[in-house]
Amino acid sequence: MSDITIWTYDWVPEGPRGFVRDLRLRWACEESGLRYRVKTVPFKDRQTNHLGQHPFGQVPMLCDGDIELFESGAGLLHIARKSEALMPGDERQAAKVVQWIVAALSSVEIVTIPWWYIEKAGPSENPLSGWMATRLDQLEAVLETREWLVSDRFTAADLLMADVLRDDKICDFGSRPATQAYVSRAVDRPAFQAAYDAQMEHFSSSSATD
Amino acid sequence: MSDITIWTYDWVPEGPRGFVRDLRLRWACEESGLRYRVKTVPFKDRQTNHLGQHPFGQVPMLCDGDIELFESGAGLLHIARKSEALMPGDERQAAKVVQWIVAALSSVEIVTIPWWYIEKAGPSENPLSGWMATRLDQLEAVLETREWLVSDRFTAADLLMADVLRDDKICDFGSRPATQAYVSRAVDRPAFQAAYDAQMEHFSSSSATD
Repeated sequence: MSDITIWTYDWVPEGPRGFVRDLRLRWACEESGLRYRVKTVPFKDRQTNHLGQHPFGQVPMLCDGDIELFESGAGLLHIARKSEALMPGDERQAAKVVQWIVAALSSVEIVTIPWWYIEKAGPSENPLSGWMATRLDQLEAVLETREWLVSDRFTAADLLMADVLRDDKICDFGSRPATQAYVSRAVDRPAFQAAYDAQMEHFSSSSATD
Repeated sequence: MSDITIWTYDWVPEGPRGFVRDLRLRWACEESGLRYRVKTVPFKDRQTNHLGQHPFGQVPMLCDGDIELFESGAGLLHIARKSEALMPGDERQAAKVVQWIVAALSSVEIVTIPWWYIEKAGPSENPLSGWMATRLDQLEAVLETREWLVSDRFTAADLLMADVLRDDKICDFGSRPATQAYVSRAVDRPAFQAAYDAQMEHFSSSSATD
């Protein structure tokens, strides 16, 4: 049973559409067959208008009954524990799913997000490029050995890792064919497509603006 | 019951001693009253000598019976679920602990670690300084309102957040008195001191070198 609400912005510019992180929670619900509703906070003045729900002024937030969470990674862990579709019941395999969820955040996004933050400013040289290439190459070596990260099946770990990697501004797929094939396998899933389409529809149908 | 092994390096230079992340797992065991043993991989050639245990060539790794994990955040979540000392039994409060563990990694370390990576090279200007100051100020506003992050008591969330913040190279405590007091409360705990002393003793007594 669930009573899930995913909170996101009422509107975003075209650039980030398809990449706002409510998509991670939508995707998790779609994989799990859990129904959810969407509520919004204004994009305008987002840095300060919902600090009571999210101390860093971002999205998404997740409500499930009386549980209220910010951080997409925490929301994903919460949804994953409700569904065998995302998290194997076996304790050892479940621990591996948690491990790879943390790795996606703490070993991959920890360099890809700051790299992109710097890159957007158009520097002559990005001081994080070397570290990022090393990390993505290390991940390529893992993905050369397996179709999914844990248990030979799609789990919440793949949902998050693929979402971290799928922006081709972040990952140069040309030199990383195993990563490219892995991301393709993940985003070809009907649950990703449903979540993606729902996010795009949400933002394009909004009457709000910046 | 537990059969915990924490893996770290056999030796590190003086600079990182007291900050190698096996400390997070030692601290968690000390808070929980769980006994653990320590095993090592060589610091020399660390990028490639233990890729079978850690695909990014780092430490720590955690073994607990037949569960084997890399990522200190994943190890911390595993230990925390074994002990009320780190994770309240109440589902709603436990979800908040997970949320703040993810926030420490995904909203705070995601800027502090890359900032420090760049800073070590001595740039004339660090492109992540503005983002880092904003994030630490947002956290200061949270810590002005409470002694601990969840449930008015120390939890695994505080263990990790305090560890992320305690290096005064990262956090300018002068303008953030609530953060400074929070970190002091955390590191004054006997369990932190025991973990810290054990790590310092481990590295100083090693006969290995780079």
